Amino acid sequence: MRARQRETAIRAAALRIFRRKGYHAASMQEIADAVGLYKGSLYYYVASKEELLVRLFEGRTEKVLAEVAAAASGAGSPRERLSAMARAYVLGVLRNLDSVHVYLREEHSLPPSALQQVHREQKAMRDHFERVIVEGTSRGDFVQGDPKLAALALLGMCTWVHRWYRPRGRLTESAVADDFAERAVRMLSP
Amino acid sequence: MRARQRETAIRAAALRIFRRKGYHAASMQEIADAVGLYKGSLYYYVASKEELLVRLFEGRTEKVLAEVAAAASGAGSPRERLSAMARAYVLGVLRNLDSVHVYLREEHSLPPSALQQVHREQKAMRDHFERVIVEGTSRGDFVQGDPKLAALALLGMCTWVHRWYRPRGRLTESAVADDFAERAVRMLSP
Repeated sequence: MRARQRETAIRAAALRIFRRKGYHAASMQEIADAVGLYKGSLYYYVASKEELLVRLFEGRTEKVLAEVAAAASGAGSPRERLSAMARAYVLGVLRNLDSVHVYLREEHSLPPSALQQVHREQKAMRDHFERVIVEGTSRGDFVQGDPKLAALALLGMCTWVHRWYRPRGRLTESAVADDFAERAVRMLSP
Repeated sequence: MRARQRETAIRAAALRIFRRKGYHAASMQEIADAVGLYKGSLYYYVASKEELLVRLFEGRTEKVLAEVAAAASGAGSPRERLSAMARAYVLGVLRNLDSVHVYLREEHSLPPSALQQVHREQKAMRDHFERVIVEGTSRGDFVQGDPKLAALALLGMCTWVHRWYRPRGRLTESAVADDFAERAVRMLSP
């Protein structure tokens, strides 16, 4: 197996084990076992369990952040754009259930520099939503109110899907994303 | 110090330390230090760290569940009741920020019987919201839609306040609860 493939396999195994047992309860031995490596060989790829956690967080939100940014500055009314943003965000959560779980649960285990990066990404996400909410409110498309609270309410509703969504349940990812996009707009409609 | 007071102090210290470091990273030694006990004496009050976690979870949602149940079966229209329920729920979260944090983060650390109890309480909470949403929908007060998704959207929005609310920030608990109660109703309004 090539080094790149092995690194991918290590990250996937770590994510799975962190999700199931929690970061602190997981051991490097288990991760090594899961990818068929000796523990000593695992350290060739990654210096520590903490580094592994940091790597799992790296770039996690880049893709969905880019999609939300594109929807925010796209064509269409603020309502249409907000709907597209909520949809992209919910799909981003639903397609990465394990990593969202670990991400939200293990923030406190991150070293300070990685945590700062996480907070920067979260702020960038809120800013996109706030900007479109402010624009829509000034045009009279959205109800008057605190745009920060509106963005937090909306992101809370959408992020929370990671707690209850079951991949092989009665609802497809698209059905949930469509439903929540509609709710997001309705929550702000006068 | 009497035994009851000491047990309360132990629970408070455990909650604080679990919140800051996470359950797995916290040690019984730290908890003993925080309440001025020898570690051996701490074991007189609690058999293990796991038992301490279970005790922290016990009865946590009873109070807010009773308040939400009372609002659900109170007088007034479904809109008024849903608003009161959302308000009670948000206040319950805001007044117990540390325990909500630990509760949501450490679910996976609970033994099976305690976890079942947590799931029963969560289901009871969802059921209260669903029932009032179904009633309001059948009267035409609320928009048509999946009542389960509506309850999950609403509870997600309201639970998420524990991630961003700052006790000495610009918003009082009441201001957030009022704002979110209004949003909850608007999200369901035709």
